[in-house]
Amino acid sequence: METTQIRLARRPEGEPDDTTFATATETLPDLEDGQVALAIRYLSLDPYMRGRLSTAKSYADPVEIGQVMVGATVGEVVESRHDGLEVGDHVLSYSGWQSAAVVDGRHVRKLDPSVAPVTTALGVLGMPGFTAYAGLLEIGRPQEGETVVVAAATGPVGSAVGQVAQIKGARAVGIAGGPAKVRALTEEFGFDAALDHRDPDFAAQLAAATPDGVDVYFENVGGAVFDVVRRRLNTYARIPVCGLVANYNATGQPEGPDRMPGLMGQVLTQSLTVRGFIQSEFTASHGRDFARDMGEWVASGRVRYREDVVDGLENAPAAFAGMLRGENFGKLVVRVGG
Amino acid sequence: METTQIRLARRPEGEPDDTTFATATETLPDLEDGQVALAIRYLSLDPYMRGRLSTAKSYADPVEIGQVMVGATVGEVVESRHDGLEVGDHVLSYSGWQSAAVVDGRHVRKLDPSVAPVTTALGVLGMPGFTAYAGLLEIGRPQEGETVVVAAATGPVGSAVGQVAQIKGARAVGIAGGPAKVRALTEEFGFDAALDHRDPDFAAQLAAATPDGVDVYFENVGGAVFDVVRRRLNTYARIPVCGLVANYNATGQPEGPDRMPGLMGQVLTQSLTVRGFIQSEFTASHGRDFARDMGEWVASGRVRYREDVVDGLENAPAAFAGMLRGENFGKLVVRVGG
Repeated sequence: METTQIRLARRPEGEPDDTTFATATETLPDLEDGQVALAIRYLSLDPYMRGRLSTAKSYADPVEIGQVMVGATVGEVVESRHDGLEVGDHVLSYSGWQSAAVVDGRHVRKLDPSVAPVTTALGVLGMPGFTAYAGLLEIGRPQEGETVVVAAATGPVGSAVGQVAQIKGARAVGIAGGPAKVRALTEEFGFDAALDHRDPDFAAQLAAATPDGVDVYFENVGGAVFDVVRRRLNTYARIPVCGLVANYNATGQPEGPDRMPGLMGQVLTQSLTVRGFIQSEFTASHGRDFARDMGEWVASGRVRYREDVVDGLENAPAAFAGMLRGENFGKLVVRVGG
Repeated sequence: METTQIRLARRPEGEPDDTTFATATETLPDLEDGQVALAIRYLSLDPYMRGRLSTAKSYADPVEIGQVMVGATVGEVVESRHDGLEVGDHVLSYSGWQSAAVVDGRHVRKLDPSVAPVTTALGVLGMPGFTAYAGLLEIGRPQEGETVVVAAATGPVGSAVGQVAQIKGARAVGIAGGPAKVRALTEEFGFDAALDHRDPDFAAQLAAATPDGVDVYFENVGGAVFDVVRRRLNTYARIPVCGLVANYNATGQPEGPDRMPGLMGQVLTQSLTVRGFIQSEFTASHGRDFARDMGEWVASGRVRYREDVVDGLENAPAAFAGMLRGENFGKLVVRVGG
């Protein structure tokens, strides 16, 4: 059995481009006891992957040059030497940007397509949904009547943040880029208010949409949006920080003025909480609650999600670069092979 | 009865100077029922007062031009129409930069000079000590064997932070300016290590003094020290922010490069907690424990403190300006009048 792999060819300076990745074909080994062979059906593309292209200090090791790009996948079992997994089963694995893989059966999670589409394991019921759930509830801690603001709000994290905030009795204000996404925020996801950060009038619109200020800003983009939102923060506001995609392609030292003293001054005078996190920190404490709550909310339609499916593994690099520019509309997933 | 007052004359641009304050004399009113007349014995000078000179958004209203400067004081009752307060009693009040005051007896706290010197109510057993205690224990949460770093470490907040950290089983590393203060950190306050931030070799010394990294950085100075310390932070490090005295006299926009994206990136990749606070937030939850714990620790000599006493109310403006430059050595207190 062969696998087509997309490997890291060269670390990008700034945006990933045509020279960043290279395609190769490899023959998979025969199965050992306990292993399964997977035909990958879906590959998840997520902003964190930009960090893996860089050797900058981070919470995870970088992908090495020549190594297959990492990523969460949904695969179909095509051969099994693992008890409890049969040919035809769908499983969540971390097989990366490739079309097939041989993996230890203990390292995959079996999915039930009758409960929810298998792609949700990569989005609303997977890592992005859990990022939203744990970060919002454990760090953001929205209270009844408070205002929660989130950017990249049609994305898998942002859309879940807004909807879970509302379930907890808070007001949800979503920020996105472009009229179609902004419209989806209120019409599709039910946000209380939706704003376009590209609008020249964005700051004034945000002020109007947050008459009582902002109690939680769920930070998953960084950049200019944060600078506008932070002027609306209330005393004791909480800022869970799970991503800064606006900065991920940055090269060199950002130009001044230096905003750090101003930010620290605001942290002090407004008693703000700024807390970075990676969702895995909360797996033990919140994983079970998430599976129960989000499973129910998605099944009942209380939490909606949107997927942006790109066809063909060969299109993963371009789709990934586009995501870093904010071009995806919903959870970005690549449909792989047959 | 007359009071000599130091009033705000002009809002300073940058450092307070000779034109910032003006002295005036006022005749106090006769006592009404429930009031006491105080001869002020000690005035506390604290960094937060710089914020009161400015109209910039903060957690408290600015002092108005022509108004007496605010501040905590220890006074002696010289006349009383309040049950429970007698002539000769010492009380903690918030009477500001003046030599006498008439105040509501319900708004003062009676001090027992047999338990501790009355000046401690302005320092280790007062607001600065509580800032250290509550911020360290509630936000910093030092664990056995962890490393706590604090700057301005001979000051009333810093010295308490280090000693309470040690009581909780953590390693305390203090930063101060100049050899005399650095020596006091280990010899007088018992810090595990002490560093001079003016030393050209400061960054390397800090690295050597924190072989296991930094788990808590108690931020009460800001500026260049933070930039060095943050390179030593561990994943999940906590940064209680109670003061940024290095920035208080700043004017205009700080020059670039812009360090904010780097700080936010670090918050994300290291799952840092940055939390601003004003001690009053924790009065209800931690005030009683503080009074008990710190009272015992000071009485037993387990927590030591140092006072820097300046004679004469007329010297308060110069002492205050010196404190903002880091010239005080211990809790800065003005001995007022007779």
